Amino acid sequence: MSDSAPRIRLLVAYEGTAYCGWQVQPGQISVQSVMEGAFEEMTGFSVRAVAASRTDAGVHAAGQVVCMDNPSRHGPLVLRRGLNALLPEDIVVLEAGRAPDGFDPRRQAKGKHYRYTVHTGPVPPLFERRLRWHLRADLDVEAMNRAAGVLVGEHDFSSFRGAGCEAASPVRTVDRIGWRAEGEALMLDVFGRAFLKQMVRIIAGTCVEIGRGRLAVGEMAQILDARDRKRAGRTAPAQGLCLVRVFYE
Amino acid sequence: MSDSAPRIRLLVAYEGTAYCGWQVQPGQISVQSVMEGAFEEMTGFSVRAVAASRTDAGVHAAGQVVCMDNPSRHGPLVLRRGLNALLPEDIVVLEAGRAPDGFDPRRQAKGKHYRYTVHTGPVPPLFERRLRWHLRADLDVEAMNRAAGVLVGEHDFSSFRGAGCEAASPVRTVDRIGWRAEGEALMLDVFGRAFLKQMVRIIAGTCVEIGRGRLAVGEMAQILDARDRKRAGRTAPAQGLCLVRVFYE
Repeated sequence: MSDSAPRIRLLVAYEGTAYCGWQVQPGQISVQSVMEGAFEEMTGFSVRAVAASRTDAGVHAAGQVVCMDNPSRHGPLVLRRGLNALLPEDIVVLEAGRAPDGFDPRRQAKGKHYRYTVHTGPVPPLFERRLRWHLRADLDVEAMNRAAGVLVGEHDFSSFRGAGCEAASPVRTVDRIGWRAEGEALMLDVFGRAFLKQMVRIIAGTCVEIGRGRLAVGEMAQILDARDRKRAGRTAPAQGLCLVRVFYE
Repeated sequence: MSDSAPRIRLLVAYEGTAYCGWQVQPGQISVQSVMEGAFEEMTGFSVRAVAASRTDAGVHAAGQVVCMDNPSRHGPLVLRRGLNALLPEDIVVLEAGRAPDGFDPRRQAKGKHYRYTVHTGPVPPLFERRLRWHLRADLDVEAMNRAAGVLVGEHDFSSFRGAGCEAASPVRTVDRIGWRAEGEALMLDVFGRAFLKQMVRIIAGTCVEIGRGRLAVGEMAQILDARDRKRAGRTAPAQGLCLVRVFYE
């Protein structure tokens, strides 16, 4: 790895089912390790891949942003084609381009869009079975939407913070959040600059409790105020979550 | 199996990737054998499942119609729930109901809708990778659509008949056929009462040759008239084909 090597920026999509998440974990297969391995196989250089979001085990991405130094002679388009030929079929490089020197996809991200998808109805979804959380339940999407709206703005999100979260502060800002129904799918779209560990999945799980009538809409504000993980609902399963897009200046 | 057992009709979806097709084949795993096995596991009865269409290896179904005699005490809704609990996640019973005595889902079908999906563009489709044929090619969808239109009506489809087809006659009727683009997907929708073996896939493959400019639009009529499999294009891969729906009176 060379300080003077040009930096490349990749737009990457992956199905997270088979991976321990973005980040390298000893003895496990991560998206990061597979991408670094493909890059080394293609170019002979071992370089570190840095992502905008360290997605958890089983979480998907439609638009992850990944940067690597590129000491090789290959340009972005050749890299995209070569990496796609070497990567397993559940990881795809959608776009590749030059990044400004020293570009950090995580620190410089101005916003992220996550989507959580629940599938309701008596029968599990067939073709989207790895991408949705199937619940045999009638959910009140209007109540879920009102409850989610309580979270907009800057708050202490300790109640929605997963165990092992290493963030220095539990304060985050939700710019926009909302549920909508599309066929048998209920989709939660959340926009913000950064999130705590499992925050979107705990929000989704808590909204589902409200949609089922096990919690009242009014309890969302109390849960937020409590700053206590035990007050919120269960963490919704990873398979329903997708990093849709990362925004930069 | 009892002659007097009530007959059930199931609407079934499956991802064909892992199967040798609908029909039982010695030493292979078919959708039929898996469904019959799940029924026996649930009810204790070994009965034959009959489908509207014997889809080939790797072909998917969003709306296959399957009938079985049901000598068990379970009603359709209990069967649906029980079968979905026992079936692997790539086979799903969408609906279950009583069928008229002696109902034959294949002989009594009045029409079938198949869809073939091609994915164009430089990068393979991630989430639909098992459901589309990926081609790094610019295809002229308008030319493909005009060529497909030549096939409407009753014709001798010998040029579009796969090896090993056991049909007594090569004459079939295409009621409606057309290509349309949706994002990076090009979809061929075909409607007819019955089809020869691999007919839709050979039509799709021939249209793709025309879309690439390797064959002229005007050659479709010549290929049809030739009644010679060697004149048509290659058989498009199974993974792009889906039985969408079966129609009855």
